[in-house]
Amino acid sequence: MPTQAQLDRLRVVLVSSRNPLNIGAAARAMSNFGFRHLRVVNPYQPAFREARSAVGASDVLTSAEQFKTVAEAVADCTLVVGTTAVRHRTLQQPLRRLEDGARSIRSRLGKNKVALLFGSEKFGLSNDDMSHCHWLLRVPTSDANISMNLGQAVAVCLYELVRDPKTPRLHEKLPPAAADEVERITTMLLDALHLSGFLELRRVADADQRIRRLVRRLNLPARDAVIWLGMLRQIVWKMRTGQDSKT
Amino acid sequence: MPTQAQLDRLRVVLVSSRNPLNIGAAARAMSNFGFRHLRVVNPYQPAFREARSAVGASDVLTSAEQFKTVAEAVADCTLVVGTTAVRHRTLQQPLRRLEDGARSIRSRLGKNKVALLFGSEKFGLSNDDMSHCHWLLRVPTSDANISMNLGQAVAVCLYELVRDPKTPRLHEKLPPAAADEVERITTMLLDALHLSGFLELRRVADADQRIRRLVRRLNLPARDAVIWLGMLRQIVWKMRTGQDSKT
Repeated sequence: MPTQAQLDRLRVVLVSSRNPLNIGAAARAMSNFGFRHLRVVNPYQPAFREARSAVGASDVLTSAEQFKTVAEAVADCTLVVGTTAVRHRTLQQPLRRLEDGARSIRSRLGKNKVALLFGSEKFGLSNDDMSHCHWLLRVPTSDANISMNLGQAVAVCLYELVRDPKTPRLHEKLPPAAADEVERITTMLLDALHLSGFLELRRVADADQRIRRLVRRLNLPARDAVIWLGMLRQIVWKMRTGQDSKT
Repeated sequence: MPTQAQLDRLRVVLVSSRNPLNIGAAARAMSNFGFRHLRVVNPYQPAFREARSAVGASDVLTSAEQFKTVAEAVADCTLVVGTTAVRHRTLQQPLRRLEDGARSIRSRLGKNKVALLFGSEKFGLSNDDMSHCHWLLRVPTSDANISMNLGQAVAVCLYELVRDPKTPRLHEKLPPAAADEVERITTMLLDALHLSGFLELRRVADADQRIRRLVRRLNLPARDAVIWLGMLRQIVWKMRTGQDSKT
């Protein structure tokens, strides 16, 4: 996981964005993943104004810097990466999948500023924009629909930068019940089945063993065993006494 | 990378979504990452109608199934996972980070259907919705802003399901130039520096060696060496002859 100092070295650069909702969504994703420095190049002014003045506009958006050219927006960065959906037309720069490219960006953020460029909703980055980039990045989308929404593309790229490959596995299994608890449940269930007539209707020689195996296959967690035992005990009591409630 | 058959076992379930743009964005992200089965539970009907009738509504959206309850929407799944931004209030289910949870989902998709639930924009999943879930998933957002836009949350979760941890590193380095090419460039650069008077103005004993090391630090790729040599040759020629162009 990158430190805040590392996150603060990334410049998310939106080039010629036209939709205020997308600009707002990009800023929101930045805020979600802890990035703070947004730059916009030559935005459609009404859209940028609308995005900034929207209710709930984030700090990221209100502190965004505006530039006239890509060159100015990336001037202080030592690595400039462009995003693209294109993969079939001849690109002049090396093209890397997000999973791979993010490794290089994370490593560079350790000491230097990095610019990550996103093009306009309609046309993406121009060849001229891309000529400022050291290499290009693509999100591994399905061939059937390579074109992502701008806000979603920003979210996915930033997530990849902060995701932690070392996230430990959650121990899904709760602590299991001990054999004596499981056996008490088995006995109580057998009582209930006898009292209800279930076993008398389905006579088999090894009924007890079948039920014992059935209960073991539940793999009951310790914390649930006591509840099951309580429920069965109440049911057995009800069948024995016919009374309305146990007092 | 999951196969299409595995992707087709995922059911993305939107519970009580109210914003047609978000429903459309969720469907778009599904299409971007190759998932095809969208289910909506109790949507705000005008929003769902608007999303389905939007220009460019994807196949995912037009083929979405509608359900009245979560129970019906997840009935055919063997694993039901809810997404949540919450991590501080007491959750009744185990909570896993996306990086970890996605491993379990991917593995289950090998043979069985899995439901991935997203709650409403405003309230997320209710406790009742969550009680249908085996466990919960959270995107590792920054504590300062844990609440993601619905469409972006869907995009990030689905990306994690399809991302390929084995993506090979791109060999960033282009094939390097051979020593003889680099030495030709060095010689030509020295000629240019003598002709321009640069070296005469800055006399040092080991000028040649300094320039040779300077050129080696460029780590020129083979394909660029020939261009640099051509540029230098033209500059040298111009300084020698003073003519307007080489013919």
